[in-house]
Amino acid sequence: MFEKLDEIKVLRDPVHGYIHIEYKVIWDCINSREFQRLRRIRQQGSSFVVYHTAEHSRFGHSLGVYEIVRRMCNEIKDIDDYLSEEDKVVVMLSGLLHDIGHGPFSHTFEAISDIKHEIYSCRILEEDTEVHRALENSRRGLSSTVASVINHTHLNPILAQMVSAQLDADRMDYLLRDAYFTGTKYGEFDLERVLRTLRIKDNTIMVKESGVHSIEDYIMARYHMYWQVYYHPVARSFECVLSALFERMRDLTSVNPKVLKDITIFDDFIMHGVKPSLQSHFLLDENSCFYGFQKLMKHEDKILSDLARRLLNRDLFQYQDIVDRKTIEEVTKRTTDAGYHPKYYVKVDNVRQRPYQPLGDDRSIWILMSNGEVQELSEGSPIVASIIKGKNKADNKVFFPR
Amino acid sequence: MFEKLDEIKVLRDPVHGYIHIEYKVIWDCINSREFQRLRRIRQQGSSFVVYHTAEHSRFGHSLGVYEIVRRMCNEIKDIDDYLSEEDKVVVMLSGLLHDIGHGPFSHTFEAISDIKHEIYSCRILEEDTEVHRALENSRRGLSSTVASVINHTHLNPILAQMVSAQLDADRMDYLLRDAYFTGTKYGEFDLERVLRTLRIKDNTIMVKESGVHSIEDYIMARYHMYWQVYYHPVARSFECVLSALFERMRDLTSVNPKVLKDITIFDDFIMHGVKPSLQSHFLLDENSCFYGFQKLMKHEDKILSDLARRLLNRDLFQYQDIVDRKTIEEVTKRTTDAGYHPKYYVKVDNVRQRPYQPLGDDRSIWILMSNGEVQELSEGSPIVASIIKGKNKADNKVFFPR
Amino acid sequence: MFEKLDEIKVLRDPVHGYIHIEYKVIWDCINSREFQRLRRIRQQGSSFVVYHTAEHSRFGHSLGVYEIVRRMCNEIKDIDDYLSEEDKVVVMLSGLLHDIGHGPFSHTFEAISDIKHEIYSCRILEEDTEVHRALENSRRGLSSTVASVINHTHLNPILAQMVSAQLDADRMDYLLRDAYFTGTKYGEFDLERVLRTLRIKDNTIMVKESGVHSIEDYIMARYHMYWQVYYHPVARSFECVLSALFERMRDLTSVNPKVLKDITIFDDFIMHGVKPSLQSHFLLDENSCFYGFQKLMKHEDKILSDLARRLLNRDLFQYQDIVDRKTIEEVTKRTTDAGYHPKYYVKVDNVRQRPYQPLGDDRSIWILMSNGEVQELSEGSPIVASIIKGKNKADNKVFFPR
Amino acid sequence: MFEKLDEIKVLRDPVHGYIHIEYKVIWDCINSREFQRLRRIRQQGSSFVVYHTAEHSRFGHSLGVYEIVRRMCNEIKDIDDYLSEEDKVVVMLSGLLHDIGHGPFSHTFEAISDIKHEIYSCRILEEDTEVHRALENSRRGLSSTVASVINHTHLNPILAQMVSAQLDADRMDYLLRDAYFTGTKYGEFDLERVLRTLRIKDNTIMVKESGVHSIEDYIMARYHMYWQVYYHPVARSFECVLSALFERMRDLTSVNPKVLKDITIFDDFIMHGVKPSLQSHFLLDENSCFYGFQKLMKHEDKILSDLARRLLNRDLFQYQDIVDRKTIEEVTKRTTDAGYHPKYYVKVDNVRQRPYQPLGDDRSIWILMSNGEVQELSEGSPIVASIIKGKNKADNKVFFPR
Repeated sequence: MFEKLDEIKVLRDPVHGYIHIEYKVIWDCINSREFQRLRRIRQQGSSFVVYHTAEHSRFGHSLGVYEIVRRMCNEIKDIDDYLSEEDKVVVMLSGLLHDIGHGPFSHTFEAISDIKHEIYSCRILEEDTEVHRALENSRRGLSSTVASVINHTHLNPILAQMVSAQLDADRMDYLLRDAYFTGTKYGEFDLERVLRTLRIKDNTIMVKESGVHSIEDYIMARYHMYWQVYYHPVARSFECVLSALFERMRDLTSVNPKVLKDITIFDDFIMHGVKPSLQSHFLLDENSCFYGFQKLMKHEDKILSDLARRLLNRDLFQYQDIVDRKTIEEVTKRTTDAGYHPKYYVKVDNVRQRPYQPLGDDRSIWILMSNGEVQELSEGSPIVASIIKGKNKADNKVFFPR
Repeated sequence: MFEKLDEIKVLRDPVHGYIHIEYKVIWDCINSREFQRLRRIRQQGSSFVVYHTAEHSRFGHSLGVYEIVRRMCNEIKDIDDYLSEEDKVVVMLSGLLHDIGHGPFSHTFEAISDIKHEIYSCRILEEDTEVHRALENSRRGLSSTVASVINHTHLNPILAQMVSAQLDADRMDYLLRDAYFTGTKYGEFDLERVLRTLRIKDNTIMVKESGVHSIEDYIMARYHMYWQVYYHPVARSFECVLSALFERMRDLTSVNPKVLKDITIFDDFIMHGVKPSLQSHFLLDENSCFYGFQKLMKHEDKILSDLARRLLNRDLFQYQDIVDRKTIEEVTKRTTDAGYHPKYYVKVDNVRQRPYQPLGDDRSIWILMSNGEVQELSEGSPIVASIIKGKNKADNKVFFPR
Repeated sequence: MFEKLDEIKVLRDPVHGYIHIEYKVIWDCINSREFQRLRRIRQQGSSFVVYHTAEHSRFGHSLGVYEIVRRMCNEIKDIDDYLSEEDKVVVMLSGLLHDIGHGPFSHTFEAISDIKHEIYSCRILEEDTEVHRALENSRRGLSSTVASVINHTHLNPILAQMVSAQLDADRMDYLLRDAYFTGTKYGEFDLERVLRTLRIKDNTIMVKESGVHSIEDYIMARYHMYWQVYYHPVARSFECVLSALFERMRDLTSVNPKVLKDITIFDDFIMHGVKPSLQSHFLLDENSCFYGFQKLMKHEDKILSDLARRLLNRDLFQYQDIVDRKTIEEVTKRTTDAGYHPKYYVKVDNVRQRPYQPLGDDRSIWILMSNGEVQELSEGSPIVASIIKGKNKADNKVFFPR
Repeated sequence: MFEKLDEIKVLRDPVHGYIHIEYKVIWDCINSREFQRLRRIRQQGSSFVVYHTAEHSRFGHSLGVYEIVRRMCNEIKDIDDYLSEEDKVVVMLSGLLHDIGHGPFSHTFEAISDIKHEIYSCRILEEDTEVHRALENSRRGLSSTVASVINHTHLNPILAQMVSAQLDADRMDYLLRDAYFTGTKYGEFDLERVLRTLRIKDNTIMVKESGVHSIEDYIMARYHMYWQVYYHPVARSFECVLSALFERMRDLTSVNPKVLKDITIFDDFIMHGVKPSLQSHFLLDENSCFYGFQKLMKHEDKILSDLARRLLNRDLFQYQDIVDRKTIEEVTKRTTDAGYHPKYYVKVDNVRQRPYQPLGDDRSIWILMSNGEVQELSEGSPIVASIIKGKNKADNKVFFPR
């Protein structure tokens, strides 16, 4: 038996109404400094330059994922029956803590630094941290169990499927949350209906046949969020500038390790061969990054200071579709002629996405037909079947200063 | 110049916030008895048996279509520039009055009676009615001009496109309205965004390239509303019973014209070769139908009284997928063996729908690319391109008593 | 143990998301013809003339009250602990069925006919009806137990408090529902928060001190709904015409009982000294009323036909504030001079309302302070304390033809 | 004539749908570094510790105020007629820029530093800044005109009334916005209705009599937001800790000006007699504050590091109602005994608020009666009349470590 709080705590949340907390270990993790740090990292690091209200943090998202997992445990009969109380607490904690290793502007940051947030999530759970102590105080070994769900090595596959797969609490929350905070409707889908149609069969979470329509809606919501929000060219422009700034810091530092002077927060992240400590990781949040940009804005290196200024004042790169190889050549020439260093001022970014890809196992969505048979989503839905046969949508752009 | 009201009238509407009325002729049409009658005909005659709150009438829908047309005229620069004041008043009236010829349970009713609501709409506009007088008092000939938009013979094709085509005020309003009143989210799409991206080119309403995503969303909304609401088997079951009731009335009447006795409201609609008068059409609304069912419930013909009772008390037919010809044979045998007359008690209903079909002209959605070219929607959208190549979704069912 | 359904049934509802049905007796009652009849009676008989989308029926409201009661039983710990399973089923049924005796345009109808819907609710429960059989089949005596909650004679006072008191499921649902279907925001309040703060003490439902703000909000929501919706002068105008029509029918009938000819549905309701049978009550719904108005519109009595026409075509009376006795005199003179019979064409209607009145017992809202003391709402809330000392808001108007 | 953009720019906003930008000078101000800085200052500096999603910035609020002012100019006939194009651009700019002088955690910061944001707003407008240049490039002298509206010295009183008075764009936006981002419903009111009922008479913005109900609703929304959000004790606890931290920095610095070492951002704000430069003001945003707290967390002064840690990790003070003088004495004794310095660890905070106070002039809400007379709100509304006679609600608490 896990210790319960005297009274259920509730946190107001616009996406879910309330977040309900019943177990003490959940509450203790929320109050740990590592979890509180998620307030200082935006859920979508670059979307706020497109949708000015997309300022919501990973803190709220993590609570939201926890809440969806909690509801799955309590409201979906098959899951309620299938999981022990320990499994339930473990999977709720996994939902809550799955993003705890994220750094600022994760997408960009991971691309340039080879730091994977999943690894830091597990380190934060298993090394000497407040959240680690909260977990171990509740039950010895709990931190490793939670980590095993997050890195998909837990023996019970249902747990990881609930947290991160194709139809999981992580995606469900971020689609709804990003839709709410951007003010777009694209990410909306019928969460109640999706939850009501989940079943377990063959150790796999499936959707009842009658729920196929709400899944199609969810698939399309995801697709539209990618193109309208996550892959919006202005957000990608912010990421290009950010990426250029980090390259420049790295290039300067490799020549002269002292070049950044009193700006120490980036040190562990730009030096080759250094693996940032948990303490460095803890200190690098979006607040300290923006403070760093302020400092860099006054740096004597013109490229550094210009790129930092661009991030702070949202004076981003413009962009152009890449028609063929010549586009890039022409842009590079033009930009160089204008006096810009093309390494930092010409950035190519290609994205492509399709609404759904049936990859089998956890990477597919399975439909439980009324006759008891199991079909992969693209068999059960004519819409999805059409879509996976169609072309991927792609968007290839080059970014450069105005 | 058309006469304006002293002050703009506003009607509260949950879908659009407010309906704004500026012209006297619009207000007079709303107050005509033919338009007020639309309060007594539900927008979706049979959906209330599935979604208990789908009780909204064609009155609200007609106001909603008017409001969208009004906004198109005022807020879309291309349309504002393209249309004269007269055109604008005409198209607003066409939006308002396009459904004025509808009878109760239109879908079913038209299928069994060969009465087309478009014909009655034009008759109501052009013959001696209150709405006709309101139009002619405003401007001589106005009633025919409005009728010509409704029956697609007006010389300016933009007007009919605004009211009823592929991307028109009629569909936009009913998707949003039916979504609101059923409480489903499926029909929602981003009306503001769609309106903002409409343009006129080559005498055709088009969508700016940047609006393709919101159109994809609209197409999917429509698709899901069909399957979740309009083609819901329980609603179709209601329609099967209704259809059986009318057949039975017709069959009995052809033997003995007096058989319905004091229930006169259906007379004009069930006698072969009779074209209902406007007065009969006016009197036949859903209120009088349900009153008629109450009376029929006490009729001595057991089939009539049973079918009427089923409609009133929502004791509908159950249903089964048609796998092959045998399904129908077996159901017919079973039902006949149970003592039911199969002509009225075994009903086959097949529906099929695809999200979008590019048929050219007004029946396609056209995309105005940023380079000035024009593409059909399925060229401009990989999703739609996939979908039109896929299979139609179909649902073939047989309905019979429990 | 009450029999449960094989699977929980859910009905989509825009106000509550879903209505959840677990017990067979609930489902059977919903499917009874008396409950299905509630689809044919609007929740607010006259609001649709002001808010054109206020077309929702008592059927949806009854389901909504049931759902709130069900949530109270399951989600409020004090109530869950306090009630037996039998109590819970009884109180859910009472919520579901509390309005089953309502007739069309209840407010007006009861005023002119001395028929109280509470009496018919109990008769429908206890006499030979489908709903009676559904209750008795589930448990002998259940119909009387439910009736005793509805007429406030059940020994456990909590049950009636849950269904109808000052802070009850009935009011909570209709405020939210009427707000949704009119499209106004006035009736909105935080249902989740109110439910979360309910407690039981001294056999009374109370609100935790921390919930006072949401109760103030609820009180104000009610106040605003009264003035913006229920007491809207145009709705009252409809009721005046309706009331005049019934008076005229009654006056003519007392002279000549055959005067209405083939319009029989009103008979039981306009003859002096007649107590309508359950069958007459069953047949008189808003559909048959409107059918009756159509018939009356062609009656030879000019007053009857004019009043019926006004109801059908929404050609209502206009109105004027009553400043002093002279206002009525002048209006009467003017109307009489214009050739109208003042008995039917001059109608005085005075309404007054205050947001809250502390009357003690079930008619007060009680606050459970954090120190365990109990306060009446107006002691615990400075806002409410101010309001009950202020003047009542009143609105006295006279209605007459344009 | 003010220069317009080639095409109207629209920014998606969940509160208003879209923000519409037509004039180049508005767009240039938005793109200035001073305006972009508002992204780094939360609208409610301390609410996020209570409502975890209250992370929205003054950037979005400023756009929202602008949008409401813009709608007032275009949609309210009296205002449209009353103002010249120049007045309109000036008042829209005033709405946009009214908060530009705000610093982080404004409420607390101003209380402890004697820096008033209004003064910095005017300095930023009139001294050498990007926003100043954008204004002057559009029209010479524009910056001073805008400043005069913000500091209430402009000759046309309507302009300031639109931006900040009792019923102004500032309050309307923040109530709706804070409600949206906290997820509470308390701040909601019917903006459309309020806007539709505004009129100008006697150089004063008034509300038509028929709008009184929506104003009552607005007044109550404000009242509830104060108690449920702005004065929530946990938010006040955050402010107490923040305030203690600044006092401690100031006390240490007055002894040893070098004590903060490499944490320079607070310097200008804690030294007695120093008036922060615009540059210091620009650099001090919530990002740099939180970075500063990280640094302070490792400071050798135990009080500084403890208070900084509390802010970062949300380990706030608890609180107790002040019953009488003894409460504070006891808390002080207890806290001192536990080893805490009472100057920094015992904080008294008293708040009081009433929904509305009729103060005359711009500080009252005026009702324009249908007979042309003018009444102060508390005369026209029985509810408001009651409320202003009632007791103020007050909340006096003492805060101290757990």
